[in-house]
Amino acid sequence: MGDWQIIEGNVTAPRGFKAAGITAGLKPSGAPDLALIYSETEAIAAGVFTTSVVRAACVDYCRQRLQQKAYARAILCNAGQANAGTGDQGWQDALETAQLVAQHLNISPDAVLLASTGVIGQRMKMEAFRAGIPQLVASLSETGGDAASQAIITTDLVTKAIALETTIEGRPVRIGGIAKGSGMIHPNMATMLSFVTCDAAVSTHLWQEMLTRAANKSFNQITVDGDTSTNDSLIALANGQSRTSAITEMNADGEKLEAMLTEVCQYLAKAIARDGEGATCLIEVQVTGAPNDAAARQVAKTIVGSSLVKSAIFGRDPNWGRIAGAAGRAGVPFEQDHLRIKLGDFLMMDGGQPMPYDRQAASDYMRQIAQDSSFPEGGQRRDNPLIIAVDLGNGSGKGSAWGCDLSYDYVKINAEYTT
Amino acid sequence: MGDWQIIEGNVTAPRGFKAAGITAGLKPSGAPDLALIYSETEAIAAGVFTTSVVRAACVDYCRQRLQQKAYARAILCNAGQANAGTGDQGWQDALETAQLVAQHLNISPDAVLLASTGVIGQRMKMEAFRAGIPQLVASLSETGGDAASQAIITTDLVTKAIALETTIEGRPVRIGGIAKGSGMIHPNMATMLSFVTCDAAVSTHLWQEMLTRAANKSFNQITVDGDTSTNDSLIALANGQSRTSAITEMNADGEKLEAMLTEVCQYLAKAIARDGEGATCLIEVQVTGAPNDAAARQVAKTIVGSSLVKSAIFGRDPNWGRIAGAAGRAGVPFEQDHLRIKLGDFLMMDGGQPMPYDRQAASDYMRQIAQDSSFPEGGQRRDNPLIIAVDLGNGSGKGSAWGCDLSYDYVKINAEYTT
Repeated sequence: MGDWQIIEGNVTAPRGFKAAGITAGLKPSGAPDLALIYSETEAIAAGVFTTSVVRAACVDYCRQRLQQKAYARAILCNAGQANAGTGDQGWQDALETAQLVAQHLNISPDAVLLASTGVIGQRMKMEAFRAGIPQLVASLSETGGDAASQAIITTDLVTKAIALETTIEGRPVRIGGIAKGSGMIHPNMATMLSFVTCDAAVSTHLWQEMLTRAANKSFNQITVDGDTSTNDSLIALANGQSRTSAITEMNADGEKLEAMLTEVCQYLAKAIARDGEGATCLIEVQVTGAPNDAAARQVAKTIVGSSLVKSAIFGRDPNWGRIAGAAGRAGVPFEQDHLRIKLGDFLMMDGGQPMPYDRQAASDYMRQIAQDSSFPEGGQRRDNPLIIAVDLGNGSGKGSAWGCDLSYDYVKINAEYTT
Repeated sequence: MGDWQIIEGNVTAPRGFKAAGITAGLKPSGAPDLALIYSETEAIAAGVFTTSVVRAACVDYCRQRLQQKAYARAILCNAGQANAGTGDQGWQDALETAQLVAQHLNISPDAVLLASTGVIGQRMKMEAFRAGIPQLVASLSETGGDAASQAIITTDLVTKAIALETTIEGRPVRIGGIAKGSGMIHPNMATMLSFVTCDAAVSTHLWQEMLTRAANKSFNQITVDGDTSTNDSLIALANGQSRTSAITEMNADGEKLEAMLTEVCQYLAKAIARDGEGATCLIEVQVTGAPNDAAARQVAKTIVGSSLVKSAIFGRDPNWGRIAGAAGRAGVPFEQDHLRIKLGDFLMMDGGQPMPYDRQAASDYMRQIAQDSSFPEGGQRRDNPLIIAVDLGNGSGKGSAWGCDLSYDYVKINAEYTT
């Protein structure tokens, strides 16, 4: 663990941030569905967005805004409609929502970023935005992080939120984050959204670099079902309100900040993976011995994304053959004679040869992990993933990926809902 | 349809081929588990094998044999043990089985090719091979194709077999094929195997080229769950017994032969996709308007492999948003404003805009397709896939892919079996 502690307040834990979440009537369920994160001063802004060529209007909007100027004051997020597959009308609707937020916050529309999640192809309920945004702005508070974390989720079982605090130059520096996962009971709600706030002072360029690296070790390393959404967005604001010196290069303070940012992203990413539809346990695949870190991450993600591996884990079946098979097809070269596979403490393959192990004990380990890692009340941290450790014997690259098992309920959830 | 007709006999339909399938005691179930395909004369041999770096001994063996000399007289295939993850012992066992076949057929061991499917990491039951191979050779017959097609399957619901006949230089030329699919009830039985026989005369180099292209349009375009096996093999023999002139270039006869080979491979590939575990219907995704054919195939395969698309189809939910989402993340550039999506006759998206359509009628179409394409007795041809047509508006490339829906039974089958 790094040099930080967990604190309360998620995105409103860093100084100078407020947040709110309300029910605006965008979701048929009547649950909270409109969130706002607000920085009292201008914040530098970094973003990582879906790589899909089919993108929601809000994603195109944010990319354009951040390319023009990497600053922001507010992030508006709605749940209910994705504003994807909505053509020109969707773009106009996005512009109008940004203008409404800017007007009521008395800031420039250019300082407003947007995110949406929900049904693809349905127009945004603009009347609900027009009525809800003034109320949302009025609800902003320094303890509004929890309300915001509630309003961005769709079918997630729990909210995902965390804040960490460290010390730089003797002053507290905080990073908070909230996320929603791929709760896809409703059609097309595969979207992963995460919003991160930070009160450190950091240069624009460095903040984007840190966020990109953190995303590559966290959100880009989780998989529930391999589907990338039209709306996936990770946006991070840093407003400098900790009043520490600006970090402009990767010195010790820079590394401390990036490590804490990475930890926030990994915590949220793991929470999303654990909350995969119908999942009964979190899986962590640790790959070592790869030609480089990126190759290691690729192998880890291929294993954790294999439907055969995922369903074997749901069946508490220590099926190392499926793990070896997935490693082999990941597109990373290695000699199968060097392959080593461990499940928890059980060594199953070494030097490419099957090893004797206690099959029943290994299955019991899997069962115990699922029981231990079952979701506690209140979204407490789950530190107990099922560990699959794979060494390729072909270098010093290492990397991890996270996912969940594949259960009957995944199919039930995704098949039975009728649009 | 091409210039050919369906005939009986599958791999023994071409002249000069015999086959056999027996129960050697390799499968715990007592079902047939050992198959042999034999050419009375030397046949040129081409192969396409798993791209995984974790490979069964038989795959390494065949690759080595075909690199040395692309000829063969016999293919031995066992079901029960995959001979993968078996280390040095597995390689020795592979060599011994080839020697046993060669000895009893009185041919060179170099003329024997091998394929295996079954449990990874278990040693081959060599006593069963030693006892079974003499009996297998004694059972060879000109009508043995059906017995061979039975002995190569594992948990497939039906056998997959076909033979086609065309005319070249006024003489009948035939191609026959059998296959087993990814029936993965047993652990690690994700293997796809297919064996093709042909009595045309064709040059070695051209035959391999034809087979590679045919595989790229068929077996490489199906997906059940995205898992590539340690044992996947497609082997094709051509023995020239039709006594037609040798085809040495892609003239009209060459094109005719390749078209018929492609049709055989596509028929078998579709049969494998339809027989995916727990599947209730075959899905065909036709992509047009791609930068090139390979890009079109990539988009088609991404769509047909999407768990979200597959589970929506199981739910008979005309969820075009998931299709658009999968197309967008396939790694092929296009403008979303040019995207066009049809499900059967229902136009759902055009020019990137959602189109009005009769949702109930579209769902009824999906339900009807599943009903029509349900597996008839005797493994008859199913000509009625669910059609998803996607145009990217970015070129003239086109390609198709096939898969199946994702049902509760997939998870049940893959989770509940305990190794």
